[in-house]
This record gives sequence, structure tokens and C-alpha cells, in this order.
Amino acid sequence: MSTINPQLGIGIDIGGTTTKYGIVNHRGEILYRGVISSRKHGTPEAFIDELYEALLPAIDEAGGIAAFRGIGIGAPNGNYYTGTIEDAPNLVWKGKIHMADIVTKKFALPAALTNDANAAAVGEMMYGAARGMKDFIMITLGTGVGSGIVANGHLIYGHDGFAGELGHTIIIPGGRKHWGTGAHGSLEAYTSATGVTVTAREFLENRPEEDSLLRAYKPEEIDARLVYEAAVKGDKIANDVYAFTGEILGRALANFVMFSSPEAVILFGGLTKAGDLLLKPVRKYMEEDLLPIFRNKVKLIISELKESDAAVLGASALVWELK
Amino acid sequence: MSTINPQLGIGIDIGGTTTKYGIVNHRGEILYRGVISSRKHGTPEAFIDELYEALLPAIDEAGGIAAFRGIGIGAPNGNYYTGTIEDAPNLVWKGKIHMADIVTKKFALPAALTNDANAAAVGEMMYGAARGMKDFIMITLGTGVGSGIVANGHLIYGHDGFAGELGHTIIIPGGRKHWGTGAHGSLEAYTSATGVTVTAREFLENRPEEDSLLRAYKPEEIDARLVYEAAVKGDKIANDVYAFTGEILGRALANFVMFSSPEAVILFGGLTKAGDLLLKPVRKYMEEDLLPIFRNKVKLIISELKESDAAVLGASALVWELK
Repeated sequence: MSTINPQLGIGIDIGGTTTKYGIVNHRGEILYRGVISSRKHGTPEAFIDELYEALLPAIDEAGGIAAFRGIGIGAPNGNYYTGTIEDAPNLVWKGKIHMADIVTKKFALPAALTNDANAAAVGEMMYGAARGMKDFIMITLGTGVGSGIVANGHLIYGHDGFAGELGHTIIIPGGRKHWGTGAHGSLEAYTSATGVTVTAREFLENRPEEDSLLRAYKPEEIDARLVYEAAVKGDKIANDVYAFTGEILGRALANFVMFSSPEAVILFGGLTKAGDLLLKPVRKYMEEDLLPIFRNKVKLIISELKESDAAVLGASALVWELK
Repeated sequence: MSTINPQLGIGIDIGGTTTKYGIVNHRGEILYRGVISSRKHGTPEAFIDELYEALLPAIDEAGGIAAFRGIGIGAPNGNYYTGTIEDAPNLVWKGKIHMADIVTKKFALPAALTNDANAAAVGEMMYGAARGMKDFIMITLGTGVGSGIVANGHLIYGHDGFAGELGHTIIIPGGRKHWGTGAHGSLEAYTSATGVTVTAREFLENRPEEDSLLRAYKPEEIDARLVYEAAVKGDKIANDVYAFTGEILGRALANFVMFSSPEAVILFGGLTKAGDLLLKPVRKYMEEDLLPIFRNKVKLIISELKESDAAVLGASALVWELK
């Protein structure tokens, strides 16, 4: 690593339970990393105080605060324009939190904030599978379903900073009720880890005559990991869960493609471990629903970034766009 | 009008039956306008030859070709990147037509081409309801349903130049079969003039006991205009057609809003004449399907541009973006 004028960034990924952070150089190498709890601080200021204390030794070792260009933050319901986190249901701090301001005040560094999926898209564009792409859609398939949309080389933040909530678009009108939003038939209700779990429990209940490895567990014990493990062992019901999930995701992607005509759709997160179990139906039904002018053009790619690093990398990448 | 260095543009709107054209100044005033057939020329070159002959006197009167900055063209399946029209089902010329090149060769002026809905969005941004907006979605509700999406102040063309085919997104999986594409449940199958007509015929057939002004016509005589006329006279079935159409459009718009979070959705075209008959259900169901962070933020606006002028204005507006 060059020691002359090192330009470093700090990436902070605020999740519902833990917050990951790291010091990242311009090549996307994480030089230092750590984790603190997101839940044990009464105020966001106290939370940032602890984060600062935790990072200080590493900042000093890297050459002091002058070696840093800024701080990037990924957070649920993060608003890029205002640097605020607004009514994030899974964080302990309620209302509108001026997180970028709090961070800037504590660290004396400029800070940029966006939602976690947008941060992942920026990371993918700078260091991952979307290098060199000007038009792509990133879909994160984790506990929830997030998205980041890049068009003309820039993230779409929209009028108010909240663009790209594709997990909440309605794919099946009148369909499954979402446990959090109450909406019926949203993408997240089916293609998140929770959605996969619900589907598995439904299939097991509705096909009582059929054997399955998953019958070794109580319904409430079943989760996306168990479904995956059963599927790779050839379990029919578990495989059908992926076929069903993949069909819904594929049809949703067709709609997204007809919106922004991306070069690629990049899938990220726990569910992508299923590989072709998921990708095959996704591709089939995406192509089926596309207008002919869009067919066989869109790359369907699984993220190249290590899942544990992506959010921190993506958040830190926001630093290079700071003015 | 200033006579010093006048900067003029030519706008050409190629439709399935006729082609409208006009000479437009930078303020969006159409100084000259005309129409020729789109159907009677064996080659696109012969078509442009006639267009050139028709425009030549007006070009000379405006100060000759030197007074013109360029030519903008709106056309079905128009590709901005390549300047081509590709497999447009309702044009007489088949395959890939290098229309921008043909125009440039004939007129010795730079030419830009995009699809008709994108051209309308550019016109709306420069001269209409979207002046000053950086993020909006234009939906054209005519014989078909088209769209133009502006984000960060620029039209989204996508990777291949075909972005923004929102009329072909699937809103009701397994729903009504589209007469042209064969897809089931696309927005255009319901919210185009043809879609409204089909809905009206279905309602009349499925509710045989119910009286309606539309029963004065044979099913094959019914069109969107008759439905409109019956609806404003208070006809129940005709009003239900708008309620149904508006619900589907509103739910679709909710999905589009969660994609790009626009400041406004601008509706354009024949169907918008219905005013509140359409807008009320559109707004109701759009808001219902939106995540709370998007609610009561998005303006729903009917285009300010005269329908007969908008396509020519929009096409001409492409000229001001020519490099």
C-alpha cells in the first residue's frame, strides 16, 4: 500500500442488531474492521460515541484523521439527500435521525448516507460485478428484499431520496399479506428469507400426504437455511419452494427490466446461495414476461462481493462521491 | 421573436397512420406545422424525400438550413442510442430502419430519435407540466400505453436504448391477454383506449340484466369515446369501466413510484379527458399500494401540452440536447 497521501474511507453498515464498520482504501481493500451493537444505546449520539472510540486507535494507526476522505453510512430507510434515517422499523431510535450530521460532528469528516441496498449497489459498481456498468439493478435477498438502481452511471435516489424500494412493489395483487407493511402480494413477502420460510411452511401444510426432510422439524423451527439444506439433498418440497420463489422473482425482474432496461440484474444475499435452484426459474420466468425487444439481453449475475464485506465496502464507496 | 441568430428545431412525430411535423423555436412555439401519410411510401427514404419537399419552403422562409440546430424524431420502437426504429409493429417499413441517418443525409442536419413517449416526456420537461422537475414519470394513455421516465434530470434510456416500456409491465399475472404481444395482464391490456373498449364490452356482456346507454350500440361499435360520453351522462356501467381502469392504473403507478420516487406522474393522451372519473380511482389505489414513506408526496398531473402539438414539440425538444 502506498504511504504517500493515502486516501482512506470509513464504511459503516448499520443493521437492526449489529453495526459493522471498516477502514477501506480506494482499491476496496478493507484494512481494518469491527462490529458493535446497534441496540444498546439510548441515543444515536451515544452509539456514534462508542463507534468513534472503537475506531480511534485504527484511525491513528492509519495516519490520523487527515488520511481520511470521509465516512459513508448504509442504513435502513437512509435518505441520501438529507443524511437522515427516517422511521426505520427495525432500529431502536425512532423518528428522523440526522445520522450524517451526528457522524460529521463527532469525526470532523464529511459523511454520506444512503439505504443499505443502495450502498451495496455502489459497492458492486466500484468493486464488484457491476464494474464498468452504467445501467444495472441490484436486488438484495436477505431478511428483507432491498434494491439499488443505477441508470446513466448514477444511483436513482428519486425526488425525495427514497427511490428503489422494489421489495415493496406488488407482484401478486391480493396475494400474501406482508408481516410488517400489511401490503398484499409484495415481492418481499415471497422472496425474502422470511418469505421462503412462509412458503415452505405453507407447502408442508397444504401437501400433508407428501414426505419431506423438513417434516423432521416443527413448523416454527423451519427457516430459509433448513429449506436450502433440504433442497440440495433433493427434497421435492424444498425444491418446489425455490421454483415458486424463483418464478415470482423472475416475473418481478421482468417488470423492473422493462422500466430501466439494465445491462444486468445483480442478486445479492443469503438466498443466492441456492445458485441454480433459484436462478433457473428466475431466468425462465423473467424471459417469459419480457417484451421480445428485451429478451436474452439482460445478464443475471450473483454478486462477487463477500457478503460479510459488501455492506461496509458499499458504504465506504459513498466516500468517493463526496464533493 | 428575435431575428438575430434564430435557433430553430424541426420536430417529427412518426405515427402508424400519419406523420406530423413542425418548426419549433426555443420557447416551444410551433411556427409552422404539417402532416403527411406514414403509409404510402415503399421505403423510409422515399418518405423522408416527401417530408423534405414539404418542409423546404418553410425552411427557406425561416432563414434557410443554417437557422436550424437539428431535427428531433419521435417514433414507435425508436432507439435513442442508434437512431434506429426497430421492428415497429404498426409501421409499414419492417426490420431495423436507420431513420436518424436517413434524415441527417437528406437535411444535412444532426438528428436525434427516441420513442414517442420519451419524446413527449422531453416536451413536458421543457415546455409543459414538468418544467423544473428532475424526477418524473410520463404515462401516455392512447391507443397504446407508453412511458418516459426522467431521473436526475435525464431520460432513462437504459443499457440498450429501450427503457421505459411500462405499458408492457405485468400488473395482473394471468390476466387479460394482450391482442398484440400475447402477454397476460399487462398495463396496456387494460388502460389503453383499446383496453377500455374491451373492458366495456366485457362489463356489458357479464351484466346482461343491467341497463346502459352503451346498449344502443353493437359491441363492435363501442369504443373509448362512446364509453366516455356515456360516463359523463352518469351511465353506471361506463362509470364502472373508469373505476376499474383507474384502479389498475393506480396500482401500477404505485409500483412505478416505488421504483424511481418521482416528484410527479404526468398523464397524457385521450383517456385523460375523463378527468376525475379516472384520476380519483387512480389516486386512491396508488396511495393504497404505496409504502407509507411515499404516501401523499407524488403529484398526479394531467399534461398541459395540447395533445395535437405535444409529440411534435417533444420531438423538437430533443434538438436542444444534441451535442
